[in-house]
Amino acid sequence: MDDSDGVKSRIKDRWDSLVKPPGSLGDLETLVQRLGAVQGRVDPDVEPAALLLFAGDHGVTEENVSAYPASVTATMLETIREGGAAINTLCESAGLELHWYNVGAASDLTRDGEKLADGTSNMVEERALDEDDLESALECGRRALRNAVSSGKNLVALGEIGIGNTTASSAVAGAILNCEPEDVVGPGTGVKGNQLEHKSKIVAQALNYHDPDGRDGYDVLGAVGGYELAAQAGVILEARRQDVPVLLDGFITGASALAACRIDSAADRVLFASHRSREPAHRKVLEALDLEPMIDLNLRLGEGSGAAVVYPIIKSAMAAYRGMHTFEDAGITVG
Amino acid sequence: MDDSDGVKSRIKDRWDSLVKPPGSLGDLETLVQRLGAVQGRVDPDVEPAALLLFAGDHGVTEENVSAYPASVTATMLETIREGGAAINTLCESAGLELHWYNVGAASDLTRDGEKLADGTSNMVEERALDEDDLESALECGRRALRNAVSSGKNLVALGEIGIGNTTASSAVAGAILNCEPEDVVGPGTGVKGNQLEHKSKIVAQALNYHDPDGRDGYDVLGAVGGYELAAQAGVILEARRQDVPVLLDGFITGASALAACRIDSAADRVLFASHRSREPAHRKVLEALDLEPMIDLNLRLGEGSGAAVVYPIIKSAMAAYRGMHTFEDAGITVG
Repeated sequence: MDDSDGVKSRIKDRWDSLVKPPGSLGDLETLVQRLGAVQGRVDPDVEPAALLLFAGDHGVTEENVSAYPASVTATMLETIREGGAAINTLCESAGLELHWYNVGAASDLTRDGEKLADGTSNMVEERALDEDDLESALECGRRALRNAVSSGKNLVALGEIGIGNTTASSAVAGAILNCEPEDVVGPGTGVKGNQLEHKSKIVAQALNYHDPDGRDGYDVLGAVGGYELAAQAGVILEARRQDVPVLLDGFITGASALAACRIDSAADRVLFASHRSREPAHRKVLEALDLEPMIDLNLRLGEGSGAAVVYPIIKSAMAAYRGMHTFEDAGITVG
Repeated sequence: MDDSDGVKSRIKDRWDSLVKPPGSLGDLETLVQRLGAVQGRVDPDVEPAALLLFAGDHGVTEENVSAYPASVTATMLETIREGGAAINTLCESAGLELHWYNVGAASDLTRDGEKLADGTSNMVEERALDEDDLESALECGRRALRNAVSSGKNLVALGEIGIGNTTASSAVAGAILNCEPEDVVGPGTGVKGNQLEHKSKIVAQALNYHDPDGRDGYDVLGAVGGYELAAQAGVILEARRQDVPVLLDGFITGASALAACRIDSAADRVLFASHRSREPAHRKVLEALDLEPMIDLNLRLGEGSGAAVVYPIIKSAMAAYRGMHTFEDAGITVG
């Protein structure tokens, strides 16, 4: 029994001492056990927390793979800056601090951290990111996590924006999970019919061209990834080092997590799934990460929206764990 | 197209004008449509909200149907009064005002509303509630809803405590859904093996003895119901009259909802399912009510715990609906 099992077992003992039928808070009880195991303490803490959102553009949008023009990434950054995107409203409702990073989007707007480029190269023609850019993007994520920790955050959630990034994520997932493109490509923001078939062909073309080694997270992220995908992977890698729970969002953060776990096979330890998205391949990604999502509300928006909707559930679990009286307090003798 | 369809369609139009792919907030979008249809307005409101918790004891506990002694209802009321029960912590975390009513529990503690009795009669020997008690318990619920409305609440959640009340709820559900007892009886707070079989036999015995008319909610609640079950039905009936959304909890609030819908067949209009509980028959109840739960976290605690965990999701949906900018605000032309 390692330390993490010891913490889980002590947390279970505390749950069983609280004034309720044993196990009756179901997955909320196991959630607190996992949080405690990550943080290495019987009294884990999930407040305050931040949602770290990364933006990047994708050269592959030249290939007509998205329902929206590439310029929408820049417009959405502006909307986020103004407070009018879904993620602004959901973070405020959930009590999450929103930090956004323009890592590689074609916009001059920056807030937290420094911008590296206007977007990736077109993956059907060359590697999306060269080695230096990949390292800088990973470092942007690591630094974002360190900043969150140094400002007292006990949990981070992930989010992203970037027209074309479901295409990149499908390629990343296809390479790592060794799937046929049609099994990992979905509608994203809303492509269908012929355009959806075309999107699969583009992913196939990129994977054939680069033939990335699915066991090598660096190779996959560099060949077919993106700035925001790499930055999210950087957050996860640093969170693993610093024992910080990371709440994933949907398919794109999941693809980043797959890549992070190919770089550090122990990184899955800090990951928490929020929701099961409507993007079809998300299910495969969650299975590969061995994560069970907390909600399934047919969300497919991105930005971290699913993570923000789930964060209050995590706070509720902690509130019960911390605030409930014990059977002893209540004067009930059990069993 | 009636008014309610008109409101839903106008709410969908507003969702589609917001800066996100159409439909990408999934069930959160349809949730707001339903809230608007209940309240009859395009800009529904779910804050402030209260959780109304009703307590009752059950004569049938004489038959050894529960994992805990009947005295635990009174102890739990005391714990709720002290703020140490799961529901206190979950309501505080969710931003729900907790109002609790001792309708028919063997305890002198009362808070909101007046106590009617120390518990029901043993349903295997006589009707659980006589006609006057039933009417008073329904009225207790109606009054609780009126009080919530007059103090400005825009939504109510339901919760209950009462040792023995999964037995009563199984009998109510069995009568209304015309099921075999073994299909509607589950472990409740934790009975298993022989005791679980025994619990089924007791439910069968009560249903055979009274043979309640499953189309008549009054008959069912009187024969095999309970004070807290009837009060919850009263809340729902009055909420239907006043267009107030009611957030159900698990199996027991679901059984009350079934009975309410047999009294007023339009009552289902105001009902919202929160979670799918681990009590096996809850699935059947939700199907009969044609409700889809928002979460499935293997909860089986009662008290309104699932409703309290889900309430922040509803607030998040409303925050996005109200706070997001439109495509027009963002300067994006949709095609």
